[in-house]
Amino acid sequence: MNSTARFITLEGSEGAGKTTALKVIHDTLNDWGVSFIQTREPGGEKNAEAIRDLLLYSDHLDAKTELLLMFAARNEHVVKVIRPMLEKNIWVVSDRFVDASFAYQGLGRGLQWETIQYFESLVVGETQPDLTLYLDVDPETGLARAASRSEKDRIEKESLTFFNNIRAGYLKRMSENANRMKKIDANQSIESVTKQIQQVLNDQQKALLT
Amino acid sequence: MNSTARFITLEGSEGAGKTTALKVIHDTLNDWGVSFIQTREPGGEKNAEAIRDLLLYSDHLDAKTELLLMFAARNEHVVKVIRPMLEKNIWVVSDRFVDASFAYQGLGRGLQWETIQYFESLVVGETQPDLTLYLDVDPETGLARAASRSEKDRIEKESLTFFNNIRAGYLKRMSENANRMKKIDANQSIESVTKQIQQVLNDQQKALLT
Repeated sequence: MNSTARFITLEGSEGAGKTTALKVIHDTLNDWGVSFIQTREPGGEKNAEAIRDLLLYSDHLDAKTELLLMFAARNEHVVKVIRPMLEKNIWVVSDRFVDASFAYQGLGRGLQWETIQYFESLVVGETQPDLTLYLDVDPETGLARAASRSEKDRIEKESLTFFNNIRAGYLKRMSENANRMKKIDANQSIESVTKQIQQVLNDQQKALLT
Repeated sequence: MNSTARFITLEGSEGAGKTTALKVIHDTLNDWGVSFIQTREPGGEKNAEAIRDLLLYSDHLDAKTELLLMFAARNEHVVKVIRPMLEKNIWVVSDRFVDASFAYQGLGRGLQWETIQYFESLVVGETQPDLTLYLDVDPETGLARAASRSEKDRIEKESLTFFNNIRAGYLKRMSENANRMKKIDANQSIESVTKQIQQVLNDQQKALLT
């Protein structure tokens, strides 16, 4: 694609501090003077948000159904939002993207890595992020933070084992995408996490802006 | 599976006369004294019916999204209804199943045959129908019949070319599954269609009941 706009994603499980991280990313991009949109997965588009509701509030979904719905929502998001925005030279910042499927539906739900790679190839194709910040948090710490919020959705009601597997999935995905994915130690204070993100963005600034 | 119950599917595009055909199948199975359930796709299960609503009434869905949603609904249907029923020795009669994806999402939407075969393998696996009745109708005849009904859904609003492609998809699928799929000439009168279906079921009775 003949575009200078970049695609940045933020990953991490429950209570990793994504809201804080998004604010840091926004402030930095504003400093750089680039136009960007903020979006999220599952969702980020009208049909995709309807699928998100099924994903979060259905009674019980079989693991393969969850995978199929997640990529159905992702396909609408990629085709109708992410690609058109990048083509218009508008940067895209997404709260979660395809790495989350490797973590949640892969090691989390126990579906084969190769199955998720097939879906990635079918739906994401060349539309891979230029940079991914992975907020790595100890699941017990993350769940304690998330517990302070009000109502839990279907995913947040899962066990500690599930979230340990998700973390293992993110770390496996990182080992396969070391150039693109940067780990942030999200067990630290908000001040420390903020500084780490600023540091990564500053390190990447030159590459992203050229 | 150690079951003597059979899985029968009915296929055909708009206005092919599926309602009449289902009644003939029901009467015949009652004559045979077998226990069966009647179900449908997309749908046939609570979560799958919610996905059906997205499929029929969303504004516009990308072809791949339609495929992913169709197989998400199918997975819930297979895992929670079709397999459990067959395991309990209850026959399953489904108004449409996986052949419809080859016709509608394959030649209808132009997605690759191999892509749909991948999803079939992932979701359907060994749970293939024992017998499929395909109601073959000329698209113009079928659409004229369907037009007499009240409100059209998203699929029914498509063009004649789309329905010609669907018919080609069903016929291609038939050529690959000649033993399982039996063609009924649905351009004929209700009486003729009824007789043709009775004939096929009688021909298959011995094989199905042993």
